[in-house]
Amino acid sequence: MSSSGKFECCLTSAPCFINTFILFVFRLYYFYNHWTMQVAIYFFICVDLSLALFEEPALFPLPFLLTLFDLIIYGSLEAVNIHSIRWSRALRPVFLINFPESRQIRRTFRSIRNTLPDILYVFLLFVFSVLIFSLMALKLFGDRGLQTVEGLPYFTNILDIAFELYVLVTTANSPDVMMPAYNFNWWYSLYFITYIIINTYIFMSVFLAVVYNNYRKHLKNEIRKLAYLKRHKMIEAFNILKVKVGTEFVVTEARWKQLARIVMPHISGPHLELLLRISDEGQKGHVDKMNFIRLADLLNIQVVTINIKRHPLEDWMPRVYQSSASLLVQRMVRHRIFVWVYDVIILINAIFIALDEKNPFISYAEWLFLSLYIIEILLKLYTYEPRAYFGRKQFWNWFDTLIIIAALVATVANTTIQSARKYNSQQILDIVLILRILRLLRIIVSIQRFRLIVTTLINIGPTILTFGGLVLVVYYVFAIIGMEAFHGKVQFFDPNFTTPNALVCGNPGLKDSAFARDRYCKNNFNDLASSFIVLMELTVVNQWHVLAGGFALVTHQAAKLYFIGFHVVVVILIVNIFIAFILEAFFVAYSLEKSEVETAIEKKIQELGVGIQEEEMQDGKLVDNMDAKDGGFSGDDGDNKRKALKGLYFRIASKKYRTVDALLQQMFESEIAPEDEGPSLDEILNFSAGDVYPKNPNFENSA
Amino acid sequence: MSSSGKFECCLTSAPCFINTFILFVFRLYYFYNHWTMQVAIYFFICVDLSLALFEEPALFPLPFLLTLFDLIIYGSLEAVNIHSIRWSRALRPVFLINFPESRQIRRTFRSIRNTLPDILYVFLLFVFSVLIFSLMALKLFGDRGLQTVEGLPYFTNILDIAFELYVLVTTANSPDVMMPAYNFNWWYSLYFITYIIINTYIFMSVFLAVVYNNYRKHLKNEIRKLAYLKRHKMIEAFNILKVKVGTEFVVTEARWKQLARIVMPHISGPHLELLLRISDEGQKGHVDKMNFIRLADLLNIQVVTINIKRHPLEDWMPRVYQSSASLLVQRMVRHRIFVWVYDVIILINAIFIALDEKNPFISYAEWLFLSLYIIEILLKLYTYEPRAYFGRKQFWNWFDTLIIIAALVATVANTTIQSARKYNSQQILDIVLILRILRLLRIIVSIQRFRLIVTTLINIGPTILTFGGLVLVVYYVFAIIGMEAFHGKVQFFDPNFTTPNALVCGNPGLKDSAFARDRYCKNNFNDLASSFIVLMELTVVNQWHVLAGGFALVTHQAAKLYFIGFHVVVVILIVNIFIAFILEAFFVAYSLEKSEVETAIEKKIQELGVGIQEEEMQDGKLVDNMDAKDGGFSGDDGDNKRKALKGLYFRIASKKYRTVDALLQQMFESEIAPEDEGPSLDEILNFSAGDVYPKNPNFENSA
Repeated sequence: MSSSGKFECCLTSAPCFINTFILFVFRLYYFYNHWTMQVAIYFFICVDLSLALFEEPALFPLPFLLTLFDLIIYGSLEAVNIHSIRWSRALRPVFLINFPESRQIRRTFRSIRNTLPDILYVFLLFVFSVLIFSLMALKLFGDRGLQTVEGLPYFTNILDIAFELYVLVTTANSPDVMMPAYNFNWWYSLYFITYIIINTYIFMSVFLAVVYNNYRKHLKNEIRKLAYLKRHKMIEAFNILKVKVGTEFVVTEARWKQLARIVMPHISGPHLELLLRISDEGQKGHVDKMNFIRLADLLNIQVVTINIKRHPLEDWMPRVYQSSASLLVQRMVRHRIFVWVYDVIILINAIFIALDEKNPFISYAEWLFLSLYIIEILLKLYTYEPRAYFGRKQFWNWFDTLIIIAALVATVANTTIQSARKYNSQQILDIVLILRILRLLRIIVSIQRFRLIVTTLINIGPTILTFGGLVLVVYYVFAIIGMEAFHGKVQFFDPNFTTPNALVCGNPGLKDSAFARDRYCKNNFNDLASSFIVLMELTVVNQWHVLAGGFALVTHQAAKLYFIGFHVVVVILIVNIFIAFILEAFFVAYSLEKSEVETAIEKKIQELGVGIQEEEMQDGKLVDNMDAKDGGFSGDDGDNKRKALKGLYFRIASKKYRTVDALLQQMFESEIAPEDEGPSLDEILNFSAGDVYPKNPNFENSA
Repeated sequence: MSSSGKFECCLTSAPCFINTFILFVFRLYYFYNHWTMQVAIYFFICVDLSLALFEEPALFPLPFLLTLFDLIIYGSLEAVNIHSIRWSRALRPVFLINFPESRQIRRTFRSIRNTLPDILYVFLLFVFSVLIFSLMALKLFGDRGLQTVEGLPYFTNILDIAFELYVLVTTANSPDVMMPAYNFNWWYSLYFITYIIINTYIFMSVFLAVVYNNYRKHLKNEIRKLAYLKRHKMIEAFNILKVKVGTEFVVTEARWKQLARIVMPHISGPHLELLLRISDEGQKGHVDKMNFIRLADLLNIQVVTINIKRHPLEDWMPRVYQSSASLLVQRMVRHRIFVWVYDVIILINAIFIALDEKNPFISYAEWLFLSLYIIEILLKLYTYEPRAYFGRKQFWNWFDTLIIIAALVATVANTTIQSARKYNSQQILDIVLILRILRLLRIIVSIQRFRLIVTTLINIGPTILTFGGLVLVVYYVFAIIGMEAFHGKVQFFDPNFTTPNALVCGNPGLKDSAFARDRYCKNNFNDLASSFIVLMELTVVNQWHVLAGGFALVTHQAAKLYFIGFHVVVVILIVNIFIAFILEAFFVAYSLEKSEVETAIEKKIQELGVGIQEEEMQDGKLVDNMDAKDGGFSGDDGDNKRKALKGLYFRIASKKYRTVDALLQQMFESEIAPEDEGPSLDEILNFSAGDVYPKNPNFENSA
């Protein structure tokens, strides 16, 4: 398509300047969104964040230049003898939030900020409850002279009790915290059971409920804002482009096509033709307001144009490819038994892996299995059209092929090293082992119900990754603070070292502590990677009181506040938002129906006879089906229509592959009447979450 | 009201026999629902369940007679030398499920049964994932010669690895299970982090999502069934009672009243009059079909008739009660400062409790505080009408009074014993301490936002109790199995005992085990109470692998299956259902609106001028308000109407106090059009959950 065609109107019409300007803005927008720019942004963010790897405390030493600017400030303060703590480092991940690709991270942060008032009062009540129970524990157990397993006095100090009871809420010290009292008199177990029911079960569920409710409320509000904003902008665009035909204002077909091409430069001609036929139902040569507003939705719906091409081998040597031997192979590969045979091979492979591989016979068998898998992929590529086989959404084909190629490369590399240097590279061996076992995952594909669950999980995968971004930001901030506070306090020595110093992690303060006894020396804040692993362990919660206790011993009891703060932020807020997100994603997937726009497109696709049913799209079957159609009767009714659209097939991208965002937006839009133009722009931008639901009867003042 | 009035129609009309029969059935129904019958049922259930307390293994010895029947079977088998295991005992709690009051327990059981197919496939996939990771761990770590902290070989046996990794899903052995590999090489931590993200976070959230989705689906289905069934029955009743007036079929006013009185014998006259005015809008002397169908809903809505009476003291000695000194006291008690003063007293009390009570001055202060609280209650009773003060829904007034009376009784009892026998009863002292601290909870009432959260929690309280029933049933079954399998294997010795035998819980098999080291000897299955406490600890999850490992050591490795089974049933299923229930209860409370029927009633109440706004109902304010109205102008417009209804006030019982069931039913009913008669009875009874939501796209075959 020639881009100069878009400018010819400039010579003839008045609003042309506007068009050219719009085009320029679009160009800028596309430049900004181009992958090179995004790579550059991510690169600089990585540099920014990874500074912590090189700064003191550092994992790697680094030339002076890289951290020059930061060091100038730090150094000048240091020179005048102010040992400043560079808190600016903790603010670095802010860069990760402030660019458009991290919309979801920012939304989650907004959601957290909006949830805070609601959760604050529940949290205060929870703290009040913990304090009341602490007071009770002090009175009940303080004077009994009981001892813990370590022989320490049991429940004699109100602050210690409050900390122990907070730990009990996280379940990390159950049932140990109860045992001394329970051993003394079994009635006292009732105290702990009551405490656990109220604080662990009920309060923690209430936290989840409050977080989830807010998450849903704010998500819905943002989606609503977006939906109305889109409609508002589309109406504005219509008012600019409209011309009067007869009694109504419309947009001409040429103008409509031009606009679509500006917005989506890479749209294929047939696809555009299809959308036009849907928008201009009566083929009147223009698009009315109602249909014009749908343009954004139409362009958003992934219509996959499937270019049915013959197998390259068929083009290259048709006689051989169509020979009876070749056809037999193709039929064999397409047969169900082919799949079963390979399932059995995978199972045998699994048994071989579980057996001891020191046996040379078994290690030869590995080569056999690898060859069998390679043969399978080659056979499939021979039978199915390669571009369809490696289609964008053919997750399992990609998975298979990459695993096998990686295993092949790693195995060959390992064998080469082994025969050349009589030495096994441990890293490569580990990778080979993992790849070998990951191959077994293929068995999931063969079981329909497993595949369906996994597909749902894969779909929410990308959004889980944005959660990874959120967690990264919070971890980074806490890691920097942790490194400032605990750097070098705990040393790791080689595990085989058993000198007294190594046993107390190089810090005499840890003598006889649970931290040293459990050999947690490597759980320290001496560098960023270690800090992240410690924070991961704290997120999992178990034994976090041992870690907190250890670092409190080597610094100050107040250090426990850092760990409590991390628990409140990460476990009570972020993990709950994560759970809320997974729940919502599943529920949205459950209550899914086709949108009105999609239905219109699908109907048109079916009318034109260029559609493919979704059921036919399962992996290899798609290719089968198209081959069958291609080789089938040529006299059937739909054939001419198909040719009219240049031998292309369309289908709506399966809902399975849509994001939660898109699904939610679609669900909300189905609630807006087509003729509803929505509130004014100002009102839209000032939507608050409270408008979505009827006023919350219980927490209405705290929103 | 005379019950003979209901029979007079027998002399004049034909369908009278039916009426008499219906009346008889109602009588039976009321007899069945009478509290004595319910007490009897609960008594026999308690006897049934508590049999386990007395049987071998028994907490208390018991005369032979009580367990006669069970023992006859057991004994006769024993006599012929078959040492049978009495599995029938595990079935006893079935009685708890099979009576109508436990509707919610049965519903939850049905919900669990219906959830099983869905969860099964997720669970299989989860097990598959654990096995794949186990295989990877065996290959990665098995040959490295690593050791755990206890010096045992690390990750060398696939079954041990699978168990350890299952424990890691529950987070109970994090990070210990990772440390040997992490100490060896920090890259290996990535394996564990991947495992935790996939299995602990994602799979566990998916379990919650599946359980929650099914819970909601089946709940909605049952509610829908009930709603349609009710409508169906009401239409049937209408068809029996209808007479033709003019062109339409109606029910006469007399017949309608008669029916209402049969269904609700204790309804007050004015209340019935109110309902009639709503049902017979035009005062035509009959009720049409639409309004007749609403009868059940009308009767269900708790309309509180507030009988405004004067304070008994005012009747008894009006001059004293209305004297200026008395009025000053009343005004003082009603003043905001009165509340503030007592809040300050509570805070001072809290500080005194936290201080050491050995100081005699502080122990005298206790008497002072107790007197102050008693004076407060007496003053309030003097000022407010006692029957309103102790109204059914005045939770905090009841709480206050009971706590204070109990504290008074216990303190007096303790002092008496102390002075008489120079000896402190530990139990009484403990109770006094707890009561003293519980008094501090009153501070919550003074903070509006706290009170609102607590009220929500109190409302879901009764349903949480039915969950207690469900948990009781499951615990009972597992306790019986556990007692059969592990009885006597672990002995508890006095904690001060330090003989070698006491340190290994009387079982040499536990030597050097974590179970003995942590002093878990009292966690055993030697009697029902201990078993329940062990099961509670297993529910909390932490250290469950230590308990499982201990019992496996004294019996067989297969014993771990019992603990894994308990984890799957209780933590994955029941705790998730509990969380789902709390979430749903909060969301329903959030998205609450008045039902159409309620609105109609409220409108009529307002029209008649006998309503009281809900906001006015907050605790003491209610009484204030009514007093004010009573003492106010008598010339106002509503006054005559009020007199017409015999000086009564009505209000719709606050939504805060409604059950989740009622709210859900109301939400669903608002979706049924008033003229929708619903499907046929057969169809209603065969509703399946699948009809509620659009077909589940991902798990549709597994429903």
